[in-house]
Amino acid sequence: MKRIMLVVAYDGTNYCGWQIQPNGITVEEVLNRHLSDLLKESIAVIGASRTDSGVHAIGNVAVFDTETKIPGEKISFALNQRLPKDIVIQQSREVPIDFHPRFCNSTKTYQYRILNSRFPLPTQRLYTHFIYYPLQAEAMSEASKYLIGEHDFKSFCSTRTQVTDTIRTIYDINVIRDGEMIQITISGNGFLYNMVRIIVGTLIKVGLGIYPPNHVKEILDKKNRLVAGPKAPAQGLTLLKIDYPDLEVL
Amino acid sequence: MKRIMLVVAYDGTNYCGWQIQPNGITVEEVLNRHLSDLLKESIAVIGASRTDSGVHAIGNVAVFDTETKIPGEKISFALNQRLPKDIVIQQSREVPIDFHPRFCNSTKTYQYRILNSRFPLPTQRLYTHFIYYPLQAEAMSEASKYLIGEHDFKSFCSTRTQVTDTIRTIYDINVIRDGEMIQITISGNGFLYNMVRIIVGTLIKVGLGIYPPNHVKEILDKKNRLVAGPKAPAQGLTLLKIDYPDLEVL
Repeated sequence: MKRIMLVVAYDGTNYCGWQIQPNGITVEEVLNRHLSDLLKESIAVIGASRTDSGVHAIGNVAVFDTETKIPGEKISFALNQRLPKDIVIQQSREVPIDFHPRFCNSTKTYQYRILNSRFPLPTQRLYTHFIYYPLQAEAMSEASKYLIGEHDFKSFCSTRTQVTDTIRTIYDINVIRDGEMIQITISGNGFLYNMVRIIVGTLIKVGLGIYPPNHVKEILDKKNRLVAGPKAPAQGLTLLKIDYPDLEVL
Repeated sequence: MKRIMLVVAYDGTNYCGWQIQPNGITVEEVLNRHLSDLLKESIAVIGASRTDSGVHAIGNVAVFDTETKIPGEKISFALNQRLPKDIVIQQSREVPIDFHPRFCNSTKTYQYRILNSRFPLPTQRLYTHFIYYPLQAEAMSEASKYLIGEHDFKSFCSTRTQVTDTIRTIYDINVIRDGEMIQITISGNGFLYNMVRIIVGTLIKVGLGIYPPNHVKEILDKKNRLVAGPKAPAQGLTLLKIDYPDLEVL
C-alpha cells in the first residue's frame, strides 16, 4: 500500500464542484472513476480543497491509497490520457502514508478576477466576474489590509456551515489592477465556507464607494455574516496553489 | 434607410465561424435572427472578417441597413439583452450608407496565443494552443520580421480559396513571451484564407528549431503553400480589432 498525491487543475465550469453529490457530476467523482479504471482497484481520492460549483483550480491537491506498482510520478501521464480536457493532473508523486491534505498544515492561495470594463468580454465570461461600474482598486487594497493576520472571520463565513472555530490567519492579500482586470490574491492557513467570495463581495462594495475602506475592520469586529457584503460569483475564483511546508516527498 | 455599424466580440468555441452555413450555427446567423426580432424587419448583416470555426473576436465589425427609428448608438444595449452570453456588441453607431466593412481600406489586427508549458491549463484550453516542447520566442520574433511589408503571401494561403491576388501588406508582427504564454500579434491591410494560422504554424517550426529564422524568407519567395508550416489550430486565434482610417461617424 502506498499513498499518492495529485496536483489537479480544472475548469470548474461544467462541474458541480469538487465533492461527490447526488445531482450532478463532480471533479472527485471523475477522478475516482478514471483512477479505478486505470489502476484496476477501487480508488477514493481525498481532496484538500472542496471547491464550489463553478470554481476553478490550478493547484488543488488530492491523495489516494493504492497497491499499484506504477511509480507515483508516472501516474499523472497515464491518468491525463483518460481524463476529459477540463481536468489535468499537473503532478503525481508518492507521499508518506499518514499525509492528509486537509489535516496537515498548509498555505492555500486563491485568486479572484474581476473584469471592470464597459462591456463584458465573451472569452472571459467563464473565468471573471464582470462589473460595469468603475471600481477604486486602491480603496479595495487599503480595505483588504485590515483582514491580514489572525482574526475571527465569522462575518465572512456562510451561515450554511457547521464549523464552530471561525478563527483563521490570512498571510497576505493583494489587489492589483492591470488595465480592465482586477486580481485579488489571498493566501492563508485555511478558509471558511465561502470566505474568499464573501471577502471579495465586501471589497467590491468598498471599490464602488459604498463602504469606506476602514468599514472592513468594523465588519470583522461584529462577527456577524449579515454585516458583510454579498458572496461574489463562483466563476471569478481560482484555487492557485496549496503549499505543505512539512511534506516529505518519497 | 440608414446603415448601422456593430463592433462585435464573441467566444468562437460554440460557433461554426462567422458565415452562415447549412450545417451548424454561426455568429452571422445569430445576429441576423436577433436583429430581425428586435427591429421587426428582415436584417442581414455584412461582416468584415468571416472568422473560421473556433476563432474568437474582440473587435469584429459588421454593418446592416435598417428603417428603425432607434438611434444607432442605442441598438447595442437592446441587442445585448437578447444575445447569448458568448456574443457581445461592444458598440453600435450610424455610418455612411456606402460604407462597406470588407471593401473599405482597413487595418486588421489578430492575436495568436500559445501556452508553452509542461502541462495544459484547463481554463486556457479553449483560448490558447498548448505546446509542450520549449519554444525559442526570440527566434520566432526574428523570423517574423521577414514577413513585414508588402509581399506575395501565396505560400501562406490555404489552397482552398479562389483568390488570385495574393499580395498583402503586413504592417507589424510582434512575438512576446510573458512567462508560459507566447503572444503573436499581427496587423495588416488584409489577410488571405488561413494566412495568420499558417504564419503561426511556420513560426512554431522556427521556435522548435526545425527551421532557422531566415528560412521564412525562402518560404515567402517560393510562393508555394507546400513549403510553409502547418495551419495552427483555431482556438488560439482572436481578431483583436479593425481600424478604418477613412470612416466617418454620423
